[in-house]
Amino acid sequence: TVDFIFKQIFKTALKQLEAEKKKELLVSRKKKAEDTIVNVNGELIGKDGTSFVYGPCAVESYEQVDAVAKSISEKGLKLIRGGAYKPRTSPYDFQGLGLEGLKILSEVGKKRGLGVVTEIVTPGDLDEALEYIDVIQIGARNMQNFELLKAAGATDKPVLLKRGLAATIDEFIHAAEYIMSKGNENIILCERGIRTYEKATRNTLDISAVPILKQETHLPVMVDVTHSTGRRDLLLPCAKAAIAIGADGVMAEVHPDPSVALSDQQQQMDIPTFDAFHDELLKFMKQYDVVK
Amino acid sequence: TVDFIFKQIFKTALKQLEAEKKKELLVSRKKKAEDTIVNVNGELIGKDGTSFVYGPCAVESYEQVDAVAKSISEKGLKLIRGGAYKPRTSPYDFQGLGLEGLKILSEVGKKRGLGVVTEIVTPGDLDEALEYIDVIQIGARNMQNFELLKAAGATDKPVLLKRGLAATIDEFIHAAEYIMSKGNENIILCERGIRTYEKATRNTLDISAVPILKQETHLPVMVDVTHSTGRRDLLLPCAKAAIAIGADGVMAEVHPDPSVALSDQQQQMDIPTFDAFHDELLKFMKQYDVVK
Amino acid sequence: TVDFIFKQIFKTALKQLEAEKKKELLVSRKKKAEDTIVNVNGELIGKDGTSFVYGPCAVESYEQVDAVAKSISEKGLKLIRGGAYKPRTSPYDFQGLGLEGLKILSEVGKKRGLGVVTEIVTPGDLDEALEYIDVIQIGARNMQNFELLKAAGATDKPVLLKRGLAATIDEFIHAAEYIMSKGNENIILCERGIRTYEKATRNTLDISAVPILKQETHLPVMVDVTHSTGRRDLLLPCAKAAIAIGADGVMAEVHPDPSVALSDQQQQMDIPTFDAFHDELLKFMKQYDVVK
Amino acid sequence: TVDFIFKQIFKTALKQLEAEKKKELLVSRKKKAEDTIVNVNGELIGKDGTSFVYGPCAVESYEQVDAVAKSISEKGLKLIRGGAYKPRTSPYDFQGLGLEGLKILSEVGKKRGLGVVTEIVTPGDLDEALEYIDVIQIGARNMQNFELLKAAGATDKPVLLKRGLAATIDEFIHAAEYIMSKGNENIILCERGIRTYEKATRNTLDISAVPILKQETHLPVMVDVTHSTGRRDLLLPCAKAAIAIGADGVMAEVHPDPSVALSDQQQQMDIPTFDAFHDELLKFMKQYDVVK
Repeated sequence: TVDFIFKQIFKTALKQLEAEKKKELLVSRKKKAEDTIVNVNGELIGKDGTSFVYGPCAVESYEQVDAVAKSISEKGLKLIRGGAYKPRTSPYDFQGLGLEGLKILSEVGKKRGLGVVTEIVTPGDLDEALEYIDVIQIGARNMQNFELLKAAGATDKPVLLKRGLAATIDEFIHAAEYIMSKGNENIILCERGIRTYEKATRNTLDISAVPILKQETHLPVMVDVTHSTGRRDLLLPCAKAAIAIGADGVMAEVHPDPSVALSDQQQQMDIPTFDAFHDELLKFMKQYDVVK
Repeated sequence: TVDFIFKQIFKTALKQLEAEKKKELLVSRKKKAEDTIVNVNGELIGKDGTSFVYGPCAVESYEQVDAVAKSISEKGLKLIRGGAYKPRTSPYDFQGLGLEGLKILSEVGKKRGLGVVTEIVTPGDLDEALEYIDVIQIGARNMQNFELLKAAGATDKPVLLKRGLAATIDEFIHAAEYIMSKGNENIILCERGIRTYEKATRNTLDISAVPILKQETHLPVMVDVTHSTGRRDLLLPCAKAAIAIGADGVMAEVHPDPSVALSDQQQQMDIPTFDAFHDELLKFMKQYDVVK
Repeated sequence: TVDFIFKQIFKTALKQLEAEKKKELLVSRKKKAEDTIVNVNGELIGKDGTSFVYGPCAVESYEQVDAVAKSISEKGLKLIRGGAYKPRTSPYDFQGLGLEGLKILSEVGKKRGLGVVTEIVTPGDLDEALEYIDVIQIGARNMQNFELLKAAGATDKPVLLKRGLAATIDEFIHAAEYIMSKGNENIILCERGIRTYEKATRNTLDISAVPILKQETHLPVMVDVTHSTGRRDLLLPCAKAAIAIGADGVMAEVHPDPSVALSDQQQQMDIPTFDAFHDELLKFMKQYDVVK
Repeated sequence: TVDFIFKQIFKTALKQLEAEKKKELLVSRKKKAEDTIVNVNGELIGKDGTSFVYGPCAVESYEQVDAVAKSISEKGLKLIRGGAYKPRTSPYDFQGLGLEGLKILSEVGKKRGLGVVTEIVTPGDLDEALEYIDVIQIGARNMQNFELLKAAGATDKPVLLKRGLAATIDEFIHAAEYIMSKGNENIILCERGIRTYEKATRNTLDISAVPILKQETHLPVMVDVTHSTGRRDLLLPCAKAAIAIGADGVMAEVHPDPSVALSDQQQQMDIPTFDAFHDELLKFMKQYDVVK
């Protein structure tokens, strides 16, 4: 058993090495104690209380995006989301307007003073997209599309990285590391629900991932209440939970007329619902009387 | 295809029948619109803002329970939890003090003015337990121990029913129905985390189950932050999220000296941590608008 | 870092202790190298090639059970299964015939020379059941109903223990240990599918659990192809896979007229399907010419 | 309720439409009843009994690949696998030799008469890769990298598509459809384990996915026993189960010296183990009736 002890000491050394390696991750709190703040269009994500990213699931037309953008800017908010490249389960579902959609987002963004958050799905689309967008979103299905992560890491645009459909928190953190290892420090993590056996919701919002990610990394963490639940009736309670647990931001989908939306009809809010939703959140935060 | 249509109409009728059946569940909101309020020792669970159920994982001694009880009663709270019959993965782990444990709980409860919440694991233990306890807890492993559910339903004690390790919300609701179908209307549901692939936490707290259960049933819903996370560092943020999303109560484990606890050492709070925890929750509840 | 090393050596010692503890489990191969063989009605489960346990989901009538029993005995098989106490999600679903059902099973078993395998759901039912049954089945929902495990362990009847809905292999092994720790060594383990996100099947057959359980324990291992798949069209291929991977037995549900069955209509085989199923298995095993 | 009936008829019509849409998938059995046979280097996958795809996890050197290739060709087999672009959780893990690795594979393949199966991870690598490889593998992490699927679908090379880490069978089928919708009919599906709560294995081999995929599509289906289990001791029993259930092929990893492998040390077989493994499979196939 002296043999055994030596073997164990060796194993221990190996484990310590691994722990050291982890300590050295650029995204780790151990590497950098203070919070990273990501500035998008003047919105200081990770600093200014709660940030809100609203917008339609998919860009369908100028009018559609502008209707939502108007409502967002009237609330004094600074960000809009919308999908131009849509990763869809079936090749026969609406795949997004592509570059055309980016141009619509950009035009509306400028008109309304909003920063544009939009998903890029492959490195080849990145170059042409950069001039139209403010934040590169990397979606759940591409969380381990490492070439895309590296390409996004080589740009100077902030990256909003969504957790994979069934990614562990450890894999999520390492995916962010792929981005930062290429020099881009402006990363926002986004919990968007994980795949479990429960079918009452589209995914299961892993709310405790938020404090874990805040502990393990120095990056801001958002919660996408739309994709995590897939149910309009759960958006408001889940947004409150996200804020309460310390999320730096909330994402939710808004469409001027969800019943004719080309994707995700069941989960987008129409404008009046959106107004009420944001109102309730402000009430919850007791923020009517405070300048954010 | 006339055939087809008739077949479909028939199917439709069947489905409607099923929906009707669901509507008729005694626990359903459709059956009773107003909230059920469960009175335990004067604490009106489901009415009086947030209820708190604190206490040690397992009853180990009179002194241990009393130390926690003192701290609870000093906070003006009215309930204590503690396990006398412990369902453990291995038969060689500490199995609890049994009836002796119930007597300790009862004695301390009387001394400190606290209602006792404790788990019963088999119908045969119920009779002798009843005189010592105020709430029958049915644990996750026994959520579909239907004979136990029926036996608890035939008593006049409130029942705190925990969600099974991997139970769907629908199964959870039907488990409550087993209890109510025997005449006992005083049921408290408790979300305690579900089993998923993620290993950063002991279980995954399914926070969105809270608003769903509140919608689907008229019963009060609690969140057990200890078992859902298995991590002391997540108790406070998860309790905030639970309160924010509308839970009627929070459960957490407290032990005078967790390092010598006979079970769940990693997740119980010691008394000073507990004091700070409860303090922070009260502050949080003032800061946010969480009145139900 | 000498400190560190000492700490690690201490940890190592702890782990070794735990490993020792595991080595000492009565069900472990480390404790007993040779296979346990369970004799039921002359069928040597774990020895005589593949054992087959067929029968209806629920006992509905003498005629129904006898029709299946006739078909089983004509195949030269020695075991029949059937549920008298049915754990059902809803209290309003058919709950089984209870003691009456046991009597039917017993009578038919004697008439046809078949050993009876049937589920017991609560310790209180065990005594009166024992005279009618040959194997105590403990179902998935009760895998951690520890009082039931202990009660079954105190009898001299073989126990067929099903894996819990979302039990780990480690928990499954420890559940068996609860039985054996009370003195009963005649335990048959049964993989019956686990709960996952995939919904094409009722559960996901964890086929690799079979060789793991055979390695870790000395107990015979069966596969229930009916509950793991929930689909009649998958019974045959999954049974082949079970036999190929080394299972000691296959369980499947058979009903004279599944369309009028009081439970599990979608997954039971009718008699002609059953005949073809068993035939195909024998062909697969090339066993028409061999005495089992 | 006439209203209700009309509403239901309308819903029914919608559902039928969806079913029709599904029927029209190019990969569907409903579209093409006969099996698709994929010819790689003279190996008729989906026709010639069971095909075997062996090789190292990662290409590390010419000598390493050649040692495995020699062993493969001595068994009379025609295919080799090996990774040149390695998707790894951490950016600091070995990322593969890239183009250099492809050249090694190609050279060895020609020398030994083996067709080369290798993973491509991004559309941008595809063009330069095509001259060196025989089958484009798309890995689990990229199963919904739709741009990569489309790019592979626009080539004339066979594509081996692995199921995503937590992809449903329906999503898997639609991912194959992305490839076929671009004109490439030579697709091999590969079940490689899914992510579940069980940690005794790296993933859970979803063995019943094989017959479901064979029913739903006309494509050949393989099973990767290495990634589904992550355990050398389970490779052989799982390969037997795969063959028994009707898989068209088995994939497994082989390395001349697993202890120094740059990835997946725990799960690769060394050459003698590989010899014994393949031997046992051939014996198994004679013993059982597994002709498709």
